[in-house]
Amino acid sequence: MSFEYNWEKIREIQPLIHHITNSVTINDCANMTLACGASPVMADAEEEVEEMVVQSQSLVLNMGTLSKSYIDRMIKAGKAANQQQVPVVLDPVGVGATSFRFQSVERLLAEVKFAVIRGNASEISTLCGSRAGKGVDADTEFETILPDIQKLAKRLNTVIAVSGSVDYVTDGEREVRIYNGTPLLSQVTGTGCMSTSVIGCCLGAGLEALSSAVTAYVAVGLAGEWAERMKGNAGLGTFRMYLMDSVSQMNNQWLAKEGKIDAR
Amino acid sequence: MSFEYNWEKIREIQPLIHHITNSVTINDCANMTLACGASPVMADAEEEVEEMVVQSQSLVLNMGTLSKSYIDRMIKAGKAANQQQVPVVLDPVGVGATSFRFQSVERLLAEVKFAVIRGNASEISTLCGSRAGKGVDADTEFETILPDIQKLAKRLNTVIAVSGSVDYVTDGEREVRIYNGTPLLSQVTGTGCMSTSVIGCCLGAGLEALSSAVTAYVAVGLAGEWAERMKGNAGLGTFRMYLMDSVSQMNNQWLAKEGKIDAR
Amino acid sequence: MSFEYNWEKIREIQPLIHHITNSVTINDCANMTLACGASPVMADAEEEVEEMVVQSQSLVLNMGTLSKSYIDRMIKAGKAANQQQVPVVLDPVGVGATSFRFQSVERLLAEVKFAVIRGNASEISTLCGSRAGKGVDADTEFETILPDIQKLAKRLNTVIAVSGSVDYVTDGEREVRIYNGTPLLSQVTGTGCMSTSVIGCCLGAGLEALSSAVTAYVAVGLAGEWAERMKGNAGLGTFRMYLMDSVSQMNNQWLAKEGKIDAR
Repeated sequence: MSFEYNWEKIREIQPLIHHITNSVTINDCANMTLACGASPVMADAEEEVEEMVVQSQSLVLNMGTLSKSYIDRMIKAGKAANQQQVPVVLDPVGVGATSFRFQSVERLLAEVKFAVIRGNASEISTLCGSRAGKGVDADTEFETILPDIQKLAKRLNTVIAVSGSVDYVTDGEREVRIYNGTPLLSQVTGTGCMSTSVIGCCLGAGLEALSSAVTAYVAVGLAGEWAERMKGNAGLGTFRMYLMDSVSQMNNQWLAKEGKIDAR
Repeated sequence: MSFEYNWEKIREIQPLIHHITNSVTINDCANMTLACGASPVMADAEEEVEEMVVQSQSLVLNMGTLSKSYIDRMIKAGKAANQQQVPVVLDPVGVGATSFRFQSVERLLAEVKFAVIRGNASEISTLCGSRAGKGVDADTEFETILPDIQKLAKRLNTVIAVSGSVDYVTDGEREVRIYNGTPLLSQVTGTGCMSTSVIGCCLGAGLEALSSAVTAYVAVGLAGEWAERMKGNAGLGTFRMYLMDSVSQMNNQWLAKEGKIDAR
Repeated sequence: MSFEYNWEKIREIQPLIHHITNSVTINDCANMTLACGASPVMADAEEEVEEMVVQSQSLVLNMGTLSKSYIDRMIKAGKAANQQQVPVVLDPVGVGATSFRFQSVERLLAEVKFAVIRGNASEISTLCGSRAGKGVDADTEFETILPDIQKLAKRLNTVIAVSGSVDYVTDGEREVRIYNGTPLLSQVTGTGCMSTSVIGCCLGAGLEALSSAVTAYVAVGLAGEWAERMKGNAGLGTFRMYLMDSVSQMNNQWLAKEGKIDAR
């Protein structure tokens, strides 16, 4: 399927990507944003999130490590972003794991309009209404909840991106499946968070929401494939280094040539 | 001495390891847990620590960067873990450095039962009652406090693991010394924290407490030795990458063949 | 120009460098401090910052991710450091970006005496009184604010270090320009923060403030140049690894032979 990649726009525009994100992978997300050619800013103080976000080209909200006050600040930043037409992407990390996370996401979804929501199958299925989101990661089960995901995307007027052995992106109408990647990506912490940051970079460069999610998935997937080839018999430390290497060398030609997507 | 390693159990069971840990090395601990074949979850909100820990196979409490509220949440998680027989490992980082740290550990020890406590000689000697724990790192002095360490292990009904040029593990009766490792391990931040996470992985895979500490020390020690050989004339950045590589490729054969332990 | 480097003093004295720093690059700063041969301690609890700083040989205050309470604790630590003649270095990250950051720096400057303040041209120009610090990064504009920077250094009785394509250090009288480095350094997160930590290491080893800033700039610049050569056609992940490698292998000979400085 032919899909137009606009990766170079990130390097051209060098958008400022405001993150309110978790303490586990915050460094990885900053480096991934730089590797894409954008500029990260990680500011989460109540006193400044609004002032920061309106200077930014997109906002990444990642609830990996959260607290009540954290969600308050995310909502504050998200509302300011909405008012100024700064696109917002949400990563509902572990939303199915605790009721606190579930309630936090409900607050976020009620208060903020998201351009893209990215999670794994378990997280997204939880958003679709089933608190018992675990085990949905299996591919066969995942197919059964696709109608719910499309319905949710329509209801929230957002693009939903689901990471898995095959990545899935929908705006409720269009559907795109991305076949790039490697299982090694799930053996390094933060590759999900980093994908969300790459979506933020694409949104910040002016790409449309669905294209942003697809482009990010292809880019991270190809980077993973390349890192796996490059590492040879080495282990996860080497893989992780080459992952960052390849994103920093990504370009439209590479995406167009090796991206494996199926769009309907 | 013959010691039975059960490293593959981590990859087989893929336990969920709940960390409440410091902001300095939280990413390293997550990646180290993944390299072992387990799954890390880093959640520290008051509202969710109890719900998270009861879904986990072990709990790692690391007080590298702490605050009063942090200790409260550690105690909350630790108590829930104790009730559900989820084993807990403590890393009393820098306990001898400030009275706040000393009092925080006293609260933790009074409220939570630990399967393993891991620290360096200075930290463990502080736990033994001497606030003036500094300088104990010297090997000769360390030998003089062994009876105190054994007494403490018995009193707390725990396993105590002491990192040093020779690592030492005791449950108050048995004693194991581990001779693997390299001084380079102390020139990278977080190798102590990562050892504690590896103990958490072993505990989460169902290994007995003393075996967990010994296995973790041998694994990290061998990984360090291998990383030192692999780096050749390169520096600490390369060493750190290979350290993660080798843990991700650790196995029982390697541990049994190159582990140097002396048990009584 | 002949300049006497005292890098080996860091390895000789192994100073303890107390950091109160941001969550994005805290791990990088700890590893950079270790790579220099010093010992990092990252403690920011209200209850312990004073007790920790008086055991340290220098204090690094970095406001990358800040909050009101964070600034309170920085001031507490900074005052204790001042009383005990422990030198303090400030990194006013993003001071021009929000009014909260600007007010926070004003509080810090009013309450704490700094040995060195290190920032980029935009940040330092904001400190010079112009809130509209953006765009000052351009080299030509930068020259126009040099008199303001010298005036500020004199007024605060401090050394000001400005990172840029050419680094600039002044105590209000003397001026040093450092021509080492590579644009790649700005494509990895935390290289500014890490430079500040290296200044902290130099101060902690007893180097004079101006020498500390110059030495740190030359060391990080040379490390970047070497990492760029070593990475060849590889990307930012590899560059970052070699950056840490080369700092861990830095020495006076290297600094003296390849350092390019111009002092007046």
